[in-house]
Amino acid sequence: MTKKEILVLEDLLGSNKKIAADIRNQLSKKGILAVNLLSSPGAGKTMLLEKLSEVLKPDYKMAVIEGDIETERDAERIRAKGIPAWQIMTGGACHLEAKMIGRLFPDIPADLDFLFIENVGNLVCPASFDLGEHLRCVLLSTPEGDDKPKKYPKAFITSDSLIISKSDLVSILPFDIERVSKEALEMNPRLEIFVLSSLNGDGIKELSDYFIQALHKLRSDHA
Amino acid sequence: MTKKEILVLEDLLGSNKKIAADIRNQLSKKGILAVNLLSSPGAGKTMLLEKLSEVLKPDYKMAVIEGDIETERDAERIRAKGIPAWQIMTGGACHLEAKMIGRLFPDIPADLDFLFIENVGNLVCPASFDLGEHLRCVLLSTPEGDDKPKKYPKAFITSDSLIISKSDLVSILPFDIERVSKEALEMNPRLEIFVLSSLNGDGIKELSDYFIQALHKLRSDHA
Repeated sequence: MTKKEILVLEDLLGSNKKIAADIRNQLSKKGILAVNLLSSPGAGKTMLLEKLSEVLKPDYKMAVIEGDIETERDAERIRAKGIPAWQIMTGGACHLEAKMIGRLFPDIPADLDFLFIENVGNLVCPASFDLGEHLRCVLLSTPEGDDKPKKYPKAFITSDSLIISKSDLVSILPFDIERVSKEALEMNPRLEIFVLSSLNGDGIKELSDYFIQALHKLRSDHA
Repeated sequence: MTKKEILVLEDLLGSNKKIAADIRNQLSKKGILAVNLLSSPGAGKTMLLEKLSEVLKPDYKMAVIEGDIETERDAERIRAKGIPAWQIMTGGACHLEAKMIGRLFPDIPADLDFLFIENVGNLVCPASFDLGEHLRCVLLSTPEGDDKPKKYPKAFITSDSLIISKSDLVSILPFDIERVSKEALEMNPRLEIFVLSSLNGDGIKELSDYFIQALHKLRSDHA
């Protein structure tokens, strides 16, 4: 990169950081836990949100912000589950930024429990942009292969949890859950690791319990 | 984006375009066909190159440039097949640029037939950067889902061919080859579509024939 390019990038990241801190602060005061989901395209973020909605809906209020380059498809899938959803179409941009979340702020109900943000499907760029979330979760689906943490380090280093998705396929794929967990923990020892399948439901309860615990902790920290 | 950001991006893309045109021109004169492979992480680019090397090696000389954010893993896999390979580690950058290919130019043997470039695993950013290739191929693996062309349009609009990979999994996945082909062709009617599995070998011969035909065309155009 040229010096000019680096300066523009630093400006962009610096201003994003400030907006993100402000969003996190406002959400914390309202007792809303925000979760930023990161992954490659097709790792199963939307289907996971559909499944989580089934488990959380009886006792908690959730809403979803969907980030995509084009189409309203993912927001429509979430709305079909009776969950409020907003679609951000980035029109070419490869990641969400905090200011895009900030623009939706007036529409977000104050009595929510969970705000899930599904980032643009991209294992690289979204890792550089704090959206004001309390938890960042990176999904890695078994068909993507178990060599990804070291090849795409930033998403794994900056996340709070690693969700290994599509576990129903693991028996027929060359994917070693132990290998990937070990590599990911070497890079980021505080990662909490979940193995799940949105297709057969394995592991969904454990993940929703993790989010519920984090919600209670947020509220007791800001009581 | 601010006006300053847009200007920096335009500079970057403009200078990339010139370098790419120069690379393409030099390769054409030498009769080397360059192929740029684009996809999400884990769609099977490296394994496809391993399989292609088995089919092409008896009659053609190929080499591979591997783009990754970190690690030499992919270049090592290709070298293990007896194929020359160079690893570009972008150190965080989400795509390859033409100048990175240009720097390797002195090392590339003049008597090659095929130069394959495996881009960073990212279905978004690499689509904006011409690397001087003659053919751009986007891979979409069946586990990623059949809704991807409209959600990540640029990679599909700028490619010459669509390679639907991991076809061996199609019977157990919700992936409709006809739907995805139809959507992709609506966006880009000149796309040539291949369906293949590097695991069981289906469709590999058809794809290698396509590259061989393109090589002959390049050489007759520049004879």
